[in-house]
Amino acid sequence: MIDFPPLSSIVQKTPSRILMLVVDGLGGIPHPDTRKSELERAELPNLDALAQHSAAGLITPVVPGVAPGSGPGHLALFGYDPVKYYIGRGVLETLGLGVPLRQGDVAARGNFCTVSPQGVIVDRRAGRVASSVSAALCHRLNAIRLDGITVEVHPGKEHRFALVLRGDRLSEDVSDTDPNRQDVPPLKAKALNPHAERTAAVVNTFVEQAQASLRDQEQANFITLRGFSQVPSLPQMGPSYALEPAAIAAYPMYRGLAGVLGMRVIPTGGTFAEELETLREHWRRHDFVFLHYKPSDATGEDGNFDAKVRTLEQLDTFIPSLLDLKPDVLVVTGDHATPAVLAAHSWHPVPIIIHSASTRGEGVPRFTERACANGSLGRIASVNTMLLALAHAGKLVKYGP
Amino acid sequence: MIDFPPLSSIVQKTPSRILMLVVDGLGGIPHPDTRKSELERAELPNLDALAQHSAAGLITPVVPGVAPGSGPGHLALFGYDPVKYYIGRGVLETLGLGVPLRQGDVAARGNFCTVSPQGVIVDRRAGRVASSVSAALCHRLNAIRLDGITVEVHPGKEHRFALVLRGDRLSEDVSDTDPNRQDVPPLKAKALNPHAERTAAVVNTFVEQAQASLRDQEQANFITLRGFSQVPSLPQMGPSYALEPAAIAAYPMYRGLAGVLGMRVIPTGGTFAEELETLREHWRRHDFVFLHYKPSDATGEDGNFDAKVRTLEQLDTFIPSLLDLKPDVLVVTGDHATPAVLAAHSWHPVPIIIHSASTRGEGVPRFTERACANGSLGRIASVNTMLLALAHAGKLVKYGP
Repeated sequence: MIDFPPLSSIVQKTPSRILMLVVDGLGGIPHPDTRKSELERAELPNLDALAQHSAAGLITPVVPGVAPGSGPGHLALFGYDPVKYYIGRGVLETLGLGVPLRQGDVAARGNFCTVSPQGVIVDRRAGRVASSVSAALCHRLNAIRLDGITVEVHPGKEHRFALVLRGDRLSEDVSDTDPNRQDVPPLKAKALNPHAERTAAVVNTFVEQAQASLRDQEQANFITLRGFSQVPSLPQMGPSYALEPAAIAAYPMYRGLAGVLGMRVIPTGGTFAEELETLREHWRRHDFVFLHYKPSDATGEDGNFDAKVRTLEQLDTFIPSLLDLKPDVLVVTGDHATPAVLAAHSWHPVPIIIHSASTRGEGVPRFTERACANGSLGRIASVNTMLLALAHAGKLVKYGP
Repeated sequence: MIDFPPLSSIVQKTPSRILMLVVDGLGGIPHPDTRKSELERAELPNLDALAQHSAAGLITPVVPGVAPGSGPGHLALFGYDPVKYYIGRGVLETLGLGVPLRQGDVAARGNFCTVSPQGVIVDRRAGRVASSVSAALCHRLNAIRLDGITVEVHPGKEHRFALVLRGDRLSEDVSDTDPNRQDVPPLKAKALNPHAERTAAVVNTFVEQAQASLRDQEQANFITLRGFSQVPSLPQMGPSYALEPAAIAAYPMYRGLAGVLGMRVIPTGGTFAEELETLREHWRRHDFVFLHYKPSDATGEDGNFDAKVRTLEQLDTFIPSLLDLKPDVLVVTGDHATPAVLAAHSWHPVPIIIHSASTRGEGVPRFTERACANGSLGRIASVNTMLLALAHAGKLVKYGP
């Protein structure tokens, strides 16, 4: 959690409810032609009005200059120091396929690839093999039996899959078999410490058997594995904050992440409108709900400035419905910036507004990067967001006599 | 380095080039008559235009309220936490004389002083003895022979000199012999831990022999020593950031400091015009260049407000030449403020602008303390500067999946 050890002595249970809307990839930077960011270009009457009655600021996800992945970006918002707490690629991608993981499981991200008769990788993605083909190949790999270890191979999109190893005394400290470039042979998995020797041997045996199983394939005739990781043992949000937290997210990865943090993950549909329906049904049963909005990140990553503007305008139309639920605290912010101009996650600070009974506005006219920079929250680390939300909800008592 | 342990996992080598112009003592405070700072009084058409197209902010060198010396001020800009990493006075002043130091050497700052027949210091600076006289006296002290230890005494200005002890198992943990006041006797050097007993004994023997050697002098008849220190073993910038870093600085101390951090120190002349000529010659061979501008600090320390304004105006005329080199990232900032009104280094935040392909300006009209305060970088610690420069240069990949 945030580096504030006396936290447990100041949290208190109250009937108040917090709604945290995380707009994925919210922040942007100005377009070279208009000199306006996505938020500045968008027509956002409801978010602007909300900003006018909220505490506003800018949050930095990790440290200035560092662009976070989705994992660190969200961990910080929920109060987990994103440098201290880390969720590995294998775990995150497996959760992203909707696959549940248990403590002790080792997960890895897998690729089908093409290896030449000379044994070097000639295509790291096996020609982006069709998802239907790779699903069938994953089914084959699922038949591999390893002594005392359960193997699960879950298909992803095209050449991607997730490998889960389940058994006693497995370790995540195993090196990638993916050399991360072509024209070289796949690597052997190596133990990064003595406790991982057995796991590395299991992985190498699995790869050998996979090779045998795939030898009739022209394209997808080999596999690479990377990001070996286990579900970390993280402090749970419920007891840490004296909350009954829930998560509503259309994308599996965010549901998985929320589950790891101890949130109740509520099944929902694939659109934000469906998420909102789910929220209405379950709102009364929880005092903290994380609500996730994905389209802004996807369009930002595509480098589609106008499309990102539209996703923000669409989100804006849902704001009155959120306010109808009368949350005691409504937080609207993002996990990181995804400027369409950069077509990638970036390090830029992200706008945040916190609306509660004690906020009355502070002259911030709009929900934009520039306007929020002048708000009362100033520039803070994302990891402080959760404490501010709790404070606005009256859930933190005074620290110290 | 900056307290971000996963740094090595996110740096990547790219062809982009970063130019960091450090304007020594850049920041100032308003003059009581005009209520304008040095930057606000100066005519800076080129820096103002650059600020209009950059990301702008203010950086705090150490923590609010703490005025740094040149060592901590520069260490922070290069990403070294200035509290965790420290370069002692003896080392810094020795490097400042252009004297190379090796790992293990112990360096100290020395003063010639006047001691009365009763054995108390009556003048800590020996009447600011002429540099020519003290150089001759240093030559005498260089003749002192200590068992197994090489002694070097390098003259500085007036009463100042640097002592370098070279040999096995020397320690920097030795107390000053300078009592830092008059009318008391010089102190004996004491070991601050058991490993330093031999070094303390060596120092005391050296002082005794120096006293014997100087007994014919009326003024400079004794010495005091302070700031015993060794070159610390610091992470090197090249491998830490995947850079080929170089330093161009007219003053020896900055060259010495850059060398300790692993920058290639390029020989140059004594003026900024000569530094610029050196930069032009070597620019293509490096992807990071630290370029140092000294006059702003010197005039600030002299308390000469108008002269400091002129040094800033002179610097401004060189900005187009820097832009002609087309750096992918141009950072202009300072190591600390040296307000002429205070005639000293100060704790005030220092303006920073970062110009890159992804910066388009943010309504900051001028390169001044007040204007930069409204920039998108906000108020950050100087130690974040280097990560931001790397990020703008595309040299940092996403942190975490």
